[in-house]
Amino acid sequence: MRISEIRATPIAFSDPPLRNSTGIHEPYALRTILQVFTDDGYVGLGESHGGAEAITRLTPELLGKDPFQLEEVRQIAGGVFAPLETACLDIMGKVADRPLVDLIGGRVRDDVPFSAYLFYKFANDVHPDVEFADLSPGEVLTPDAMLGQAREFVDRFGFRELKLKGGVLSPEDEIESLRLMRDHLGDGIGLRIDPNAIWSVPASVRACREMERLDLPMEYVEDPTRGQDGMAEVQRETRFRLATNMCVTRFEHIGTGFASGCVQVVLVDHHAWGGIVACKQLARVCEGLGWGVSMHSNSHLGISMAAMVHLGASIPNLDYACDTHYPWAKDDVIRERFRFEDGCLRVPDGPGLGVTLDEDALAELAETRIRWGRDRRDDVTEMRRFDPSWEPISPRW
Amino acid sequence: MRISEIRATPIAFSDPPLRNSTGIHEPYALRTILQVFTDDGYVGLGESHGGAEAITRLTPELLGKDPFQLEEVRQIAGGVFAPLETACLDIMGKVADRPLVDLIGGRVRDDVPFSAYLFYKFANDVHPDVEFADLSPGEVLTPDAMLGQAREFVDRFGFRELKLKGGVLSPEDEIESLRLMRDHLGDGIGLRIDPNAIWSVPASVRACREMERLDLPMEYVEDPTRGQDGMAEVQRETRFRLATNMCVTRFEHIGTGFASGCVQVVLVDHHAWGGIVACKQLARVCEGLGWGVSMHSNSHLGISMAAMVHLGASIPNLDYACDTHYPWAKDDVIRERFRFEDGCLRVPDGPGLGVTLDEDALAELAETRIRWGRDRRDDVTEMRRFDPSWEPISPRW
Repeated sequence: MRISEIRATPIAFSDPPLRNSTGIHEPYALRTILQVFTDDGYVGLGESHGGAEAITRLTPELLGKDPFQLEEVRQIAGGVFAPLETACLDIMGKVADRPLVDLIGGRVRDDVPFSAYLFYKFANDVHPDVEFADLSPGEVLTPDAMLGQAREFVDRFGFRELKLKGGVLSPEDEIESLRLMRDHLGDGIGLRIDPNAIWSVPASVRACREMERLDLPMEYVEDPTRGQDGMAEVQRETRFRLATNMCVTRFEHIGTGFASGCVQVVLVDHHAWGGIVACKQLARVCEGLGWGVSMHSNSHLGISMAAMVHLGASIPNLDYACDTHYPWAKDDVIRERFRFEDGCLRVPDGPGLGVTLDEDALAELAETRIRWGRDRRDDVTEMRRFDPSWEPISPRW
Repeated sequence: MRISEIRATPIAFSDPPLRNSTGIHEPYALRTILQVFTDDGYVGLGESHGGAEAITRLTPELLGKDPFQLEEVRQIAGGVFAPLETACLDIMGKVADRPLVDLIGGRVRDDVPFSAYLFYKFANDVHPDVEFADLSPGEVLTPDAMLGQAREFVDRFGFRELKLKGGVLSPEDEIESLRLMRDHLGDGIGLRIDPNAIWSVPASVRACREMERLDLPMEYVEDPTRGQDGMAEVQRETRFRLATNMCVTRFEHIGTGFASGCVQVVLVDHHAWGGIVACKQLARVCEGLGWGVSMHSNSHLGISMAAMVHLGASIPNLDYACDTHYPWAKDDVIRERFRFEDGCLRVPDGPGLGVTLDEDALAELAETRIRWGRDRRDDVTEMRRFDPSWEPISPRW
């Protein structure tokens, strides 16, 4: 069995004006959809934030390789291995007539829990010509408005863990947003805040102390400040667990991450850590180091969603509900979009990823990408459309 | 596909009177051979040092499980997971009609390099009634005799890396043994010594300094002394890399192992680290931490050998030739014993492990085990047969 063709298709799909510490999401999010074909008629799917050009450049080297030879493909692909691995595992599952999860250790759960990913945002009608997902359409720039968004996520999807993308309002107003959620969304809610390292060390310590004083049910505080040293300073001053997808993002960071005591939770991400198997490897190490495991997300569609579900089903020590931007996406490249039940997604039963590419949708989103014309995400320039004086300073508080 | 039967057969096979720091090998080595049967007619094989009783006790829980559900089997099996995992991967390979290596990332090499495992020893005729492998039959208790044994390993098997099991003679005589090998076995020989942590910190430092002075081609020095703290003291005093299969033996030891700087090489062992996949995970972490990867061995037969070869073929950062006791074993439970060529073993091409159980040999070695009657290895008591005053003191030097 040999790889006979690889198609890497850049696409764009509508993404609401979600705020973050560096600026605001552009009206279209960018992804690359990968199709890997074999000479005996199998097709594997992959999805990543980018890498289409690199994959196309590497394709001559990849043609003729056996999709089971993941280490060999990894050596060729380097930094763009992740979507290729997903596609190869999709093929392997189809060959073995097994769900992908069965090739990475099998499932320890049928339903994978996800968290609400809450964003301060502008009203969708700042882009009157773009159609967005039917979700929190208005402006959300106050604690009260954020409570409304959180309630919508809880009511519609059944999430019980709520992650607030912070670093947008002042730490005080963001903490007030969390307090409102705790007070109004019932018992058993778990909270997280992720200011994307835009707080200084003193601001982070102050914020943690205030959240402690309010006795907020923080599952963890994600990347309040920049760098392992700064995070370690904050971790020494708070009883909350710090989490990261910014200061421990490669296997090379694990040693100093442990020695410095900078975090207690690491977010796996098969796109960022070099694949699904790499995330299984990372999770095993986290277990050994006493680190909790959660899962990171970026704006994504259904192929990534499927990979995340298979991975999440197979990690015994997945200690927290996974992040996902999925509810914010209106479109998809798979025939049947995933639907959350009680905050969970069920592992697809079909072979491989268990999802089917919608070729028409792919063609349409590829057209959108060409019309949109951008090569990479730029939250800063987009923010300057609304605030010409905007600077992505760090730390901001 | 469900597990329908599990057979765990304790066996014993002849093992020469090999010396080590705690005493001497008994004339029979103990293993457990595992057969896992499925309801649709597959059989998977495993091998471990023991665990037959525990596996038999767990069998009611394991029956009915799907061999692809490795995480579930791991949760049930705990400390005796490793041979069960080998058997399940053997079955998975047979189902997919693929060599086992293809289920753990594929192969980065076809021929896996092994090292000579050299032992000081008594003459085989201290056990006149036992038949041993035709290898280094005489007494080896001097540097000259050890040179003879090393030459035999080089000439017969083509090994270019030589590992001396140390902690038997004085450090001076063991270093002299290494010097003779360097001087008489040609260029390109790589040397290792493993005193099994029987040296004190000062003795370890003195030995390393002496090996440095002689400019011996040490690939690494394995476990000269006990514990991460002691090893770290020695590592700070020598330019040689320290290796371990004693002070970093679980994922829980990795954090302090890195922080203490106690080693630069870790020996994977799928029996000891909880399976083949766990060793792949460990190797990935070692890559991230900048640790070299080698492979550990205990007295073993062909099923373990096959598993070691598949694993060794799949680890990109296998930096050193693997240890193996295999040449010291006369018997086997597989139909066709592995044969070294230029110090390497070729990955079997058949599905799964690619080896076939020799049921007659298994029955015979099970008989031997019953006749031998021992439940566990005891090198100390065996040594007292030859030296009634023997005490396994540590450190000895």
